[in-house]
Amino acid sequence: MPLINEQFLKLPESYLFSDIAKKVNAYKITHPKADILRLGIGDVTRPLPKAVIEALHQAVEEMADQKTFRGYGPEQGYRFLIDAIIRNDYESRGISMDPDEIFVSDGSKSDTGNIGDILRHDNTVALTDPVYPVYVDSNVMGSRGGDLLKGGYWSNFVYLPCTAENHFIPEIPEKRFDMLYLCYPNNPTGTVLSRAELKKWVDYALKYDVLILYDAAYEAYIREEDIPHSIYEIKGAKHVAIEFRSFSKTAGFTGLRCSYAVVPKALKGSALNGQKVSLNKLWNRRQCTKFNGTAYIVQRAAEATYSPQGREQVKSLINDYMENAELLRGGLMNAGFTVFGGVNSPYVWMKTPDNLSSWKFFDRLLYELQIVGTPGVGFGPSGEGYFRLTAFGRKEDTLEAIQRIRTWKV
Amino acid sequence: MPLINEQFLKLPESYLFSDIAKKVNAYKITHPKADILRLGIGDVTRPLPKAVIEALHQAVEEMADQKTFRGYGPEQGYRFLIDAIIRNDYESRGISMDPDEIFVSDGSKSDTGNIGDILRHDNTVALTDPVYPVYVDSNVMGSRGGDLLKGGYWSNFVYLPCTAENHFIPEIPEKRFDMLYLCYPNNPTGTVLSRAELKKWVDYALKYDVLILYDAAYEAYIREEDIPHSIYEIKGAKHVAIEFRSFSKTAGFTGLRCSYAVVPKALKGSALNGQKVSLNKLWNRRQCTKFNGTAYIVQRAAEATYSPQGREQVKSLINDYMENAELLRGGLMNAGFTVFGGVNSPYVWMKTPDNLSSWKFFDRLLYELQIVGTPGVGFGPSGEGYFRLTAFGRKEDTLEAIQRIRTWKV
Repeated sequence: MPLINEQFLKLPESYLFSDIAKKVNAYKITHPKADILRLGIGDVTRPLPKAVIEALHQAVEEMADQKTFRGYGPEQGYRFLIDAIIRNDYESRGISMDPDEIFVSDGSKSDTGNIGDILRHDNTVALTDPVYPVYVDSNVMGSRGGDLLKGGYWSNFVYLPCTAENHFIPEIPEKRFDMLYLCYPNNPTGTVLSRAELKKWVDYALKYDVLILYDAAYEAYIREEDIPHSIYEIKGAKHVAIEFRSFSKTAGFTGLRCSYAVVPKALKGSALNGQKVSLNKLWNRRQCTKFNGTAYIVQRAAEATYSPQGREQVKSLINDYMENAELLRGGLMNAGFTVFGGVNSPYVWMKTPDNLSSWKFFDRLLYELQIVGTPGVGFGPSGEGYFRLTAFGRKEDTLEAIQRIRTWKV
Repeated sequence: MPLINEQFLKLPESYLFSDIAKKVNAYKITHPKADILRLGIGDVTRPLPKAVIEALHQAVEEMADQKTFRGYGPEQGYRFLIDAIIRNDYESRGISMDPDEIFVSDGSKSDTGNIGDILRHDNTVALTDPVYPVYVDSNVMGSRGGDLLKGGYWSNFVYLPCTAENHFIPEIPEKRFDMLYLCYPNNPTGTVLSRAELKKWVDYALKYDVLILYDAAYEAYIREEDIPHSIYEIKGAKHVAIEFRSFSKTAGFTGLRCSYAVVPKALKGSALNGQKVSLNKLWNRRQCTKFNGTAYIVQRAAEATYSPQGREQVKSLINDYMENAELLRGGLMNAGFTVFGGVNSPYVWMKTPDNLSSWKFFDRLLYELQIVGTPGVGFGPSGEGYFRLTAFGRKEDTLEAIQRIRTWKV
């Protein structure tokens, strides 16, 4: 009998979102007529932009014709998409990028989950807390977590608390570590790092040779000046950072699956003998071995988000969601809650009233107002006492939620 | 600086297929007008079946409408596809399957590459030789390979030679190991295992608690009776085998990306303390953490291959390729070559004449006949002296290739 990867046994069997789904289902069984408003999971609800739909139809037609049919594509993605990415997401911000530094894939969950394949199991990992659970779980699977301690901490991770007390800006630690996950605009807190704050981290990483895994899946929601959209806007970042980008939240691709990772050629890891090794080469080898490229039609769809029409439509999509974010943020503040995020992000992060626990607040919101959100503690110990609502719901649901909250006696 | 996964340094930097591409490009530069016939890489060339195209267009339209738009789907795949798979691929052969045992994904390369995530690094791995390189490389990355020895062998793998001498039927070894990769119809040899032969392996696995990783990506090409399409046709296999299936070669999905893995609930691995652990649960946890599901529109496309029209169209597609296989097989035999496979498989595996090395034969075929094939040694040491041609080319190219070979003075 094969031996299993024992690390899996340390992980709680279920997830945050399946726990939530179970609780919601239980409620529905006892309250079949309840009008439940779902502002929990970070999934989009608006249809795909018209330019994307047209590109999909056209690409499907190409697949119907022997002359234009496409079989296996490059594991790294088609040049037409890579070139569009570089032109629009990097060159437009004064960042040069080599086509070989872009790896198109099927999702940032895959990329952030799989990146550990190219890194040793005993690197030390630092995480902001609260944090997107995939960073935690995938590193536990990769033997970097150690043991789960009381309070939800893993023994081998370095936690960088992000709370109202430090304005959700992680403090730069004294000691060094090997890998650091940063996600900005942040999931779940909806907060951002200014250029100056992000520069501190890049400088720290340059000084101590730390690998930053920078998740910028929500960059399209940035509205304020002086908030970097890419970590490569900071000088020197190509020597320390991998960036993850996604079309999921930008253009409504959660059900279509397209993302990309940027692994600069300047980025090195170290072998045990001190030899410096290109992480770009290792990631390329990993992808060529364990991945067979993203669907051609999906890559054409992603390309269409960069056309003049596509860009307009995406902008309008984002504006729609950000109107929800403003409604949520304003509504909650008017109702007396303490609220963060929601300005450069589709996530609104609130303090639970009266120091209610995250799950207690979840239950009350569900049972008393029939609103589903996400308990902050589900994202890590420092999320306790906080709660996440998302702007991805339908406008009418968002308005209705605010209405219910306004008249609520907590 | 993070430490890298040192195992990557042991892997040759390039692949078989990129080496071939380089050689072909070099030839093209010096012979720009040469009419090169590509019968090398196992990629399909016929357009997608009409039923698939229609399903794609329809699903794209659903994504254009708020009422029918789909965001994140289940990581395991949509029930409509899983139910179609169970009904058509299993129940039709008398095999019952629980929907929770099917995991839809973006490709068998991903699945066979990622399955190692749930298994310990020190399991012993047995491979038929020659073999699909992904099994080798992904297990080297996962620390199961040991060191690369002279002759192309990895020190920690158990090799099961498949050559003309044993009729390409791997011999059941005396010693046990933990994991065994079997791919039937076989890539690259194009040979199959009869029900009786496969039963021997299942019985062996049951006796010694071996995990069989059964790659059935080419099952649609089986034409003879008594050749199992699924390992679960053999009694007891649910206790020992994971099966990988793909729409790539069945329905021309290499550029569309859809496949599935079957991880039966009866299948267990062992923890170090002897605890038996469900591999189904572990794979589910892995997929939920590092994968976000296959595109909705692609799953609808896969579903369409099971409709009455879809089935007819897929059958005709396969027949087209198998006509090529027959042409190749017959043409090569008439020209005096020793040929295997090509009966239940799109791959024709031939002995090189006069004991030419695989690469020498590759060069001669390219330079003298302008035909690109794949050197057998690229698939493992026991592939030396063999050569693979595929039936996935266009009919006119296949006919032309036979024409050139017929008048060739080797």
